[in-house]
Amino acid sequence: MRRFVLIAFSFALLHGEEGMWTFNQFPAEKFKQKYGFSPTQQWLDHVRLSSVRLAEGCSASFVSPNGLVLTNYHCAVTCIQQISSAGKDYTVTGFNAASGAEEAKCPGQEANVLVEISDVTARLKAKTAGLADKAAFDARKAEIAQIEKECATSDSVRCEVVTLYGGGIYDLYKYRRYQDVRLVFAPEFATAFFGGDPDNFMFPRYNLDMSFLRIYENGQPVKTPDHFPISAAGPKEGELTFVSGHPGGTNRQHTIDMLELERDYTKPLTLFYLSEYRGMLGEFQTRGREQQRIAQDDLLFTENSLKADKGEYWSLLEKPFFQLKVAEEHDFQKRVNADPKLKAQYGDLWAEIVKADQRARQLYLPYVYLEGMLGLESDLYTHARRLIRMAAEFAKPNSERIPRYTDARKPELQQATLSKAPIYPELEIEKLTFSLSKLREALGPDDPAVRQIFGERSPREIATDAVKGSKLTDVAVRKALMEGGQPAIDASDDPMIKLAKQVDPLARKIRKQWEDEVESARSRALEKLGAARFAVYGTSLYPDATFTLRLSYGTVKGWNENGKPVYPFTTLGGAFDRATGREPFALAPSWLEAKPRLNLKTPFNFVTTSDIIGGNSGSPVINKDAQLVGLIFDGNIHSLGGNYGFDETLNRAVAVDTRAILETLDNIYHAQRVLDEVSKK
Amino acid sequence: MRRFVLIAFSFALLHGEEGMWTFNQFPAEKFKQKYGFSPTQQWLDHVRLSSVRLAEGCSASFVSPNGLVLTNYHCAVTCIQQISSAGKDYTVTGFNAASGAEEAKCPGQEANVLVEISDVTARLKAKTAGLADKAAFDARKAEIAQIEKECATSDSVRCEVVTLYGGGIYDLYKYRRYQDVRLVFAPEFATAFFGGDPDNFMFPRYNLDMSFLRIYENGQPVKTPDHFPISAAGPKEGELTFVSGHPGGTNRQHTIDMLELERDYTKPLTLFYLSEYRGMLGEFQTRGREQQRIAQDDLLFTENSLKADKGEYWSLLEKPFFQLKVAEEHDFQKRVNADPKLKAQYGDLWAEIVKADQRARQLYLPYVYLEGMLGLESDLYTHARRLIRMAAEFAKPNSERIPRYTDARKPELQQATLSKAPIYPELEIEKLTFSLSKLREALGPDDPAVRQIFGERSPREIATDAVKGSKLTDVAVRKALMEGGQPAIDASDDPMIKLAKQVDPLARKIRKQWEDEVESARSRALEKLGAARFAVYGTSLYPDATFTLRLSYGTVKGWNENGKPVYPFTTLGGAFDRATGREPFALAPSWLEAKPRLNLKTPFNFVTTSDIIGGNSGSPVINKDAQLVGLIFDGNIHSLGGNYGFDETLNRAVAVDTRAILETLDNIYHAQRVLDEVSKK
Repeated sequence: MRRFVLIAFSFALLHGEEGMWTFNQFPAEKFKQKYGFSPTQQWLDHVRLSSVRLAEGCSASFVSPNGLVLTNYHCAVTCIQQISSAGKDYTVTGFNAASGAEEAKCPGQEANVLVEISDVTARLKAKTAGLADKAAFDARKAEIAQIEKECATSDSVRCEVVTLYGGGIYDLYKYRRYQDVRLVFAPEFATAFFGGDPDNFMFPRYNLDMSFLRIYENGQPVKTPDHFPISAAGPKEGELTFVSGHPGGTNRQHTIDMLELERDYTKPLTLFYLSEYRGMLGEFQTRGREQQRIAQDDLLFTENSLKADKGEYWSLLEKPFFQLKVAEEHDFQKRVNADPKLKAQYGDLWAEIVKADQRARQLYLPYVYLEGMLGLESDLYTHARRLIRMAAEFAKPNSERIPRYTDARKPELQQATLSKAPIYPELEIEKLTFSLSKLREALGPDDPAVRQIFGERSPREIATDAVKGSKLTDVAVRKALMEGGQPAIDASDDPMIKLAKQVDPLARKIRKQWEDEVESARSRALEKLGAARFAVYGTSLYPDATFTLRLSYGTVKGWNENGKPVYPFTTLGGAFDRATGREPFALAPSWLEAKPRLNLKTPFNFVTTSDIIGGNSGSPVINKDAQLVGLIFDGNIHSLGGNYGFDETLNRAVAVDTRAILETLDNIYHAQRVLDEVSKK
Repeated sequence: MRRFVLIAFSFALLHGEEGMWTFNQFPAEKFKQKYGFSPTQQWLDHVRLSSVRLAEGCSASFVSPNGLVLTNYHCAVTCIQQISSAGKDYTVTGFNAASGAEEAKCPGQEANVLVEISDVTARLKAKTAGLADKAAFDARKAEIAQIEKECATSDSVRCEVVTLYGGGIYDLYKYRRYQDVRLVFAPEFATAFFGGDPDNFMFPRYNLDMSFLRIYENGQPVKTPDHFPISAAGPKEGELTFVSGHPGGTNRQHTIDMLELERDYTKPLTLFYLSEYRGMLGEFQTRGREQQRIAQDDLLFTENSLKADKGEYWSLLEKPFFQLKVAEEHDFQKRVNADPKLKAQYGDLWAEIVKADQRARQLYLPYVYLEGMLGLESDLYTHARRLIRMAAEFAKPNSERIPRYTDARKPELQQATLSKAPIYPELEIEKLTFSLSKLREALGPDDPAVRQIFGERSPREIATDAVKGSKLTDVAVRKALMEGGQPAIDASDDPMIKLAKQVDPLARKIRKQWEDEVESARSRALEKLGAARFAVYGTSLYPDATFTLRLSYGTVKGWNENGKPVYPFTTLGGAFDRATGREPFALAPSWLEAKPRLNLKTPFNFVTTSDIIGGNSGSPVINKDAQLVGLIFDGNIHSLGGNYGFDETLNRAVAVDTRAILETLDNIYHAQRVLDEVSKK
């Protein structure tokens, strides 16, 4: 009940250790006043260039001059599963490349390094000035496509216009793009996920949630002069640390109406869906050992989302917290209304958001089920839709396309299409059957779109026919369809392509409604909201997270849980104490065998007050000297409310201590090659 | 958004067609003023004695002088599944006894007829006067056990003290108890549940959700001079009708704090659990045809609960509705506080409820998972717990026992223990594995109770060991344990008995905490609430539903759904129009074959404005002349908010028209024996 007491008006002030700061707006002056130290521009540049974004949704960092990357196991688990097979399951054995030649390419993995940030706000505002919501939305979309195209001079450059402060600022983020990412080392699944779902978002914790990747370019490891040496000393209690990573998204600046829509509608719907999906996947795994293996990845991400979404949901239901958010909004509105000029400019933005939210509620279910593909969970369907959309969109002018299909996005579309990731028809049928049933349930059996898709068929018939008859499991077939463009798509009688062709017009229709009636009004109102915040509270605030590089800071510090202090470190020995021998509390055989050799007092996991969120997984924890002392892999249960507000008393980031990384590489895994390569300090 | 507009202060007034009236408090005078007709005492007695309660949770009625009972298919589906086997599946073929000898006994089914109501308020209040919460709670429990024991003079008498108006009135309900209930006729599952979960709680509707049972006594059909003739004319649009049945429970008189606890905590938790359980069961069914059969019943009830609970949940989240409930409470509080005497007596009751609710929130999870058995879903576990509790409780004085184990409850405990209902170990293992996993998730792996139950074992290990090794599938084994009492339980090494012996002390501990710290305070506060309502609004109100006999009334009338009128009747022909040939929209072969013979214009389902809720399933819809014109089987989607308040503009009960019952018995099922027996008028 004491959660969030510090968050009121938090966005206006630099207090506590809150904030996910952009690298070009770090509050160096205020920071220096508080800590007597502040990152220099050189320090910031070095940290930025040593930081890596994994495009699928994680963070990472360079830890050697030869492109060696440290990230979480769970950020590589999809890759590890994809390069495994029924005969050779690396989730069971772990993976340790004995030489460069054995480093295994991850299908579909892309890494980005942020090389430049530039402000394109003026250019975009000039294009939208004076336009009504929908026209402004379309004009902005077209100009963003143009800016990104101009910037993306080759496939090795990734450019993204990032909307900050709800549209108060638009920055162009230019990344070096790498599409050859290989697995170097990973421990066993049981080691990385010790404690499984029960311990997820909990602390004390005992997870070696790490893996090493390497980035290649032209078949050679990339040179990375900017990288973090791994500290053999690790972090100290009370030490000031930094986290450089890519928080995926926060809703801290959302209005009360938006939070209520989330709390009372979209979040419960998500939780019902994920709960049932989890039940299905868990039972599917009982079919056999191979089925357990192939569904592990899906189940893992479902359980993780479920626990994270539940945490967010319960935090929104905490009355004292919500009352503070309401008070915060009232203060903001009072200040706007007190100034006649501000009132004229911004006074009606809350009502505009309410209106957009009402329409959002009406369109939400068809939007997420058809366009968001919640009703069409299937890798094959995803391939099919991408193929038919590439054909259709590439035929249009760049500025008129769906944003994900602009010229600047071609490299990732092609990589995804040609990914060698295996597809399992047995699991595909269950996922598609399940999600089609949920589609029919959400929209109702009499909905015209449902009638058109289903006809007289059952979900299982549709799924079975489409999966069993499809040739899209074959990369060559997908390549031919991609290269053949619209004529190839038109000629295809692949049943999954046919299903996608049937659904896509319905999905596009609801997408257009959503853009025209929800997104455009909402984005205009949010832009106003961002501008009003600037006008009222000045510039010393950080934008909501956007899966772009941010710098957080915090101290290594426990907390008080219901009156009991939680110590900020665990040890390797603690894992042995907690082990039961049964999943998910079973230690891997390698650990049991190595126990006599291990220094059981080695610090294993630790917590800091850093302000992080999903997407920060794999972020380096560094000290003032830019040495890597830890590897972020989770937050505690209180951190989940961090989506809406930060409470320094309870909110903690959870990391692997570098001392445990070095000790286990040495004494459990004998990973001498990795150990020799990482710079240690 | 127009829902519930009529409910404000509805409990104070007889307006609209709201109300689930007790048979001894029917507002005959006011009713007569409105309708120019009122039931006489004779009419009420006849209707009461023609009405049947099915103890597992349904309503029914006599439709012949020889104990023939009409109820829903879904009220008999458990029986139908229990008497089926892999080789003979009556859910597929339907059931039609060709003679009395073929009528099949339903394991575990009990039927009750209400023969007498008497007021025991004064007797109970005398025992609790001046006592503190916990002492009053215990004294009341003991006196109820005593009253029920005095009343239950033989196994064929069932006596229950019913708490009405939250404890404003305590009535003793005396029933004739019948434990030999046999299946006479049932159509196919596909016919009864046409449209399945997608159409559940929807209208227009095409369900022949009916079955015929017969009550036996000493091996002979019971004589039932009081029964309803079945009307061949059916109901007319606009006709006044009555529903005599057993609404299971409503929360209309709950305080805002109680509703918030439900909306923001207990209901979401229930929905997460049911969603995941549903996902598990649905996937279990893909193992094969037999697995589909044995899980059908569980899945059906899970889906039905899920949809009903979701409807209630969304209704609590409707802002205009909730604001009305808040306004209603403010008015009530204002009136209490305006009168110094009332204020002194009742002014603090809302604060008392808040306090009890706070404690309820803390104890809720262990209470429902351990004592409520949400963490131990298994028929075998249920048997094991009943056996060990019978042994322990029967050794105590009657007044000190857990209420379900008093002397008056022995007949149903024995019947349940000796039930021949089949148990399927394969499904048992999945259910118990699932629920044990949820138990660990809910309480956390470090909870002392979890540690004690689990030790180092996994949920699947515990479930597999307990189910595979248990002999409790054998009725004779259960009988021996029941008759052997505590020594037999102590000596048993049946692994399911052992699991129950391990869990039960933990369950009893939390049960005691819940009773002492939540229930006793809450029941005192609710008693005050009921008394305060009487004091403020007088006596012209009906009590919340309690699964006891109530009389509702209403007219056959459609409604307006988003501006479009919904006609109150469907026809048999409509079912053929809606059929797709695929589950759940596949008509049974018997229907397809019979189509040329059928009068397709025969009215099939219809709606009335009657105020009903779950438990009313199987209730007769009767006209002023006490002729049966319909069979309640559902409510529309708006009826689900009826748990909290009644809105006559939208809330509809859904029934099978007697014309469809007679037409299908005749022309589809050739059920001449049933047709000849029912009196038709």
